[in-house]
Amino acid sequence: MKARITVTLKNGVLDPQGKAIEGALGALGFDGVNDVRQGKVIDIELAESDKASAEGKLNDMCEKLLANTVIENYHIDIL
Amino acid sequence: MKARITVTLKNGVLDPQGKAIEGALGALGFDGVNDVRQGKVIDIELAESDKASAEGKLNDMCEKLLANTVIENYHIDIL
Repeated sequence: MKARITVTLKNGVLDPQGKAIEGALGALGFDGVNDVRQGKVIDIELAESDKASAEGKLNDMCEKLLANTVIENYHIDIL
Repeated sequence: MKARITVTLKNGVLDPQGKAIEGALGALGFDGVNDVRQGKVIDIELAESDKASAEGKLNDMCEKLLANTVIENYHIDIL
């Protein structure tokens, strides 16, 4: 079973990476860029075949390792 | 206009970050993890209101800055 986990910063948390990209885009001549925020996607392949238990396991993985839940949100998509 | 750009490594390209996550998950006791690959998501807010020209601009941004097209694929979602 394949899943995609998307981890993004919570609203209000400063994103220096996003600001750097925004500045670089401006320097390259791209105007009209109001805001840029960067997150990560983690594609995981599990041996698990049961969707519910896979979801539970992925949730655990996010809570324990993949996301810093103080400043990040995560979203799990079972593909 | 808001868009999400997802940048992932092409198949066959070694992903040390993914391997590190895979190892850490194993160390935390998560079994049955066959493969892990990490990419990035970039959320961009454009002043542009025309969808076609926004898509063209975003494509340019990916080709010039946001993705290393030698080893990475990118996907543009206009939200």
